[in-house]
Amino acid sequence: MATKRVVVIGGDAAGMSCASQARRMQGPDSLEIVGFERGPRTSYAACGLPYFVEGIIEPADRLVARTPEQFAQRDIEVHVGHEVTAIDTGARTVTVLELATGSERHESYDELVIGTGAVGIKPPLPGIDSDGVAQLRTVDDGIDLDRRISEGARTAAVVGAGYVGIEVAEALLARGLDLTVIQLDETPMAEALDADMATQITDAMRDAGAEVIMGAGAEAFETSEGKLAAVVADGRSIPADLAVLGLGVRANSSLPKEAGISVGDAGGVVVDDRMHTATDGVWAAGDCVESMHRVTGESVVMALGTHANKQGRVLGTNLGGGQSTFPGVIGTAVTKFRDLEIGRTGITEATAGRLGWEVQATTATSKTRAGYYPGAEPITVKLIVRRSDGRILGAQVVGGVGAGKRIDSLAVAVWCEMTVEDLAMADLSYAPPLSPVWDPVVFAAGVAARELRG
Amino acid sequence: MATKRVVVIGGDAAGMSCASQARRMQGPDSLEIVGFERGPRTSYAACGLPYFVEGIIEPADRLVARTPEQFAQRDIEVHVGHEVTAIDTGARTVTVLELATGSERHESYDELVIGTGAVGIKPPLPGIDSDGVAQLRTVDDGIDLDRRISEGARTAAVVGAGYVGIEVAEALLARGLDLTVIQLDETPMAEALDADMATQITDAMRDAGAEVIMGAGAEAFETSEGKLAAVVADGRSIPADLAVLGLGVRANSSLPKEAGISVGDAGGVVVDDRMHTATDGVWAAGDCVESMHRVTGESVVMALGTHANKQGRVLGTNLGGGQSTFPGVIGTAVTKFRDLEIGRTGITEATAGRLGWEVQATTATSKTRAGYYPGAEPITVKLIVRRSDGRILGAQVVGGVGAGKRIDSLAVAVWCEMTVEDLAMADLSYAPPLSPVWDPVVFAAGVAARELRG
Repeated sequence: MATKRVVVIGGDAAGMSCASQARRMQGPDSLEIVGFERGPRTSYAACGLPYFVEGIIEPADRLVARTPEQFAQRDIEVHVGHEVTAIDTGARTVTVLELATGSERHESYDELVIGTGAVGIKPPLPGIDSDGVAQLRTVDDGIDLDRRISEGARTAAVVGAGYVGIEVAEALLARGLDLTVIQLDETPMAEALDADMATQITDAMRDAGAEVIMGAGAEAFETSEGKLAAVVADGRSIPADLAVLGLGVRANSSLPKEAGISVGDAGGVVVDDRMHTATDGVWAAGDCVESMHRVTGESVVMALGTHANKQGRVLGTNLGGGQSTFPGVIGTAVTKFRDLEIGRTGITEATAGRLGWEVQATTATSKTRAGYYPGAEPITVKLIVRRSDGRILGAQVVGGVGAGKRIDSLAVAVWCEMTVEDLAMADLSYAPPLSPVWDPVVFAAGVAARELRG
Repeated sequence: MATKRVVVIGGDAAGMSCASQARRMQGPDSLEIVGFERGPRTSYAACGLPYFVEGIIEPADRLVARTPEQFAQRDIEVHVGHEVTAIDTGARTVTVLELATGSERHESYDELVIGTGAVGIKPPLPGIDSDGVAQLRTVDDGIDLDRRISEGARTAAVVGAGYVGIEVAEALLARGLDLTVIQLDETPMAEALDADMATQITDAMRDAGAEVIMGAGAEAFETSEGKLAAVVADGRSIPADLAVLGLGVRANSSLPKEAGISVGDAGGVVVDDRMHTATDGVWAAGDCVESMHRVTGESVVMALGTHANKQGRVLGTNLGGGQSTFPGVIGTAVTKFRDLEIGRTGITEATAGRLGWEVQATTATSKTRAGYYPGAEPITVKLIVRRSDGRILGAQVVGGVGAGKRIDSLAVAVWCEMTVEDLAMADLSYAPPLSPVWDPVVFAAGVAARELRG
């Protein structure tokens, strides 16, 4: 059998976990794997960047899971500093630009994997390209931010209080900067959390010394001597040596779109559950694709490392001659701001409202441990329950240390289409240092079940 | 409607959560609730006792969730120091002995609730009743143990390395005693954990300075001047000012048995899913009953506070005129020894062997957090999977801080009869301070799924 040539566009989570999995399935005699990565590094943990900036992790290269040399040892050839600028799906070639030299070449493929990831949203505000306005997407972004702080930045603004925004806020406060957090929505993480849960994050940021402006977006970035000096928001000018944008991301799908590969309404490449696009021989995975949301049934872009890794694994299995399918997402995520842990899964009450679904939202506060055990902290669990049958459609958790990962038992419950009646009697674990006798998840389910019965 | 009189035997978790729930459902005009508790306290958290001995929680009364006075305020009359010595199910009366005075009286009931709990197993070994051989079942047991340590006990033995044994071992080591742990099985927690997982606990106890004798039970307790001086085990005499028995419990069902109320092969009172016994007007809940194990289908005694509280709640709802059923147990539990957290759910590989079931046992070690994040500790997940269809029948988790409560997502998976294939692609949460991108639970499921496919 002739060797099949696989070209992978993008050297991060999706592309490289695909490459690794395909290589596990097939040796180099039957499968040649060549990757092209625009940036200087492969397989880095972007989610770890705030903690590098905070000073918890160093050096920055600890965030690199695997280097091109390590891939080479596994017979996976990855070229960093190489950008794919065009795809010809008819000729089965890609155009590759070597960034250092500007030289361009064509590379042929039998199977193409698109793992172009996401791009940070950057609205066309005055001054947004100024020196000092940063994103935190790459290791170099992190190194640059760290350097600016070390070199004397004293004031900072975080624009957008989503996952990255609140993690960067923690980092900048830890580094001693005077921080202002600016968020267009009335509460942080507005896509992920309902307002009643998210206000705890606002409070925690204020308690930690941040100024928090909610309900007013950044309007402009003012410079002095070519450098950022202030962010304009809420009708005033807020001094800032640094501004970090945390305005979310969109699928980086312009390259496949230009090649005529189908892109959906949510802006991501459309794939089937084997991660194959509508174009023969073209596959895609990770932040650049749309996934099926198992609760809403909608096709969504959900840029999370968990999905990128799973989808890459599924794609690699299929490329390698196996059979694997990606079953969709329910939007489970967790983060923390200092000691406040935040988890979410499924849909929010707000989303249920948008869809016109009849739900009951129940909020129940208990403790992370037995009340008498030191370190017992408040934990609030919110459940979004379908009125017709009690099925759990979504959940949110906000609380002290030990709260966040409790979202996982709720995620499995949502995944399995469990009802609150069933969860209220489910056999979860208890020991005073780790849980009250009614685990907060079970407790909340019990409250919701009683409310549902009326 | 005439007032119905409910008599509750036992003032701890099952009896009192039943009483509280029945009262929520019905006022004192329609339901009179009278409880009798042999001991001096109601509703105490026995699971917290090791931590009181350790010195983490004080005073001991912090472990009392609700006093008789507090119950009285809710129109629940509880008599402590009163032992029910006989039940006449024909006449619908109980014989009550007031322990302080020795006076006996009869009390009538319309509905009887048996919540007699469990008794610690105490084999007839020479010297086992000596001064200095203790159990840790009641608050007074805890106070007594604490006093003996404060008064100068320097050496101790823990006999039996189950949940209580390892928790007491942690406490006694923290209090500075020279400790020997003696266990008849080759590994700790042999009922709950397979040997390959449990050896980590042996290692942790040794690392903490305990001498650990496995595979040899205590043979005798030697005294000097009327007090415990040594425990004989493994052919030698081990100096011990104190010995704490952690040999497990059995259902305290002799009282109902003598009254002709049906007791099952596992030694517990037999109840239906509404917590009613086979005898008209007699109900039971908590450690004294048998529950249906949802994985094995067997009727088991599983003395855990989680079940006692849930069963009491179910019983109280039914007593109060509502409809509620207890859906059975899967044996989920968690504990810790110092920083080593231990969780388990469903059946062990050993139990599968006993049942002759065709299972695959898969063990996978990963980290509690992203590998580069400080505090990332090893975590081992073991999955017991039915070979025919990949259904998860049981799971065990042993690892560093953050490991233990991960058993809950596995418990929901076992509860919902999930397969490893499904769990391997389930959407669990990720953030570097709280989890690797492949959560250890999902990671283990993936390894198990690959093994299962061969």
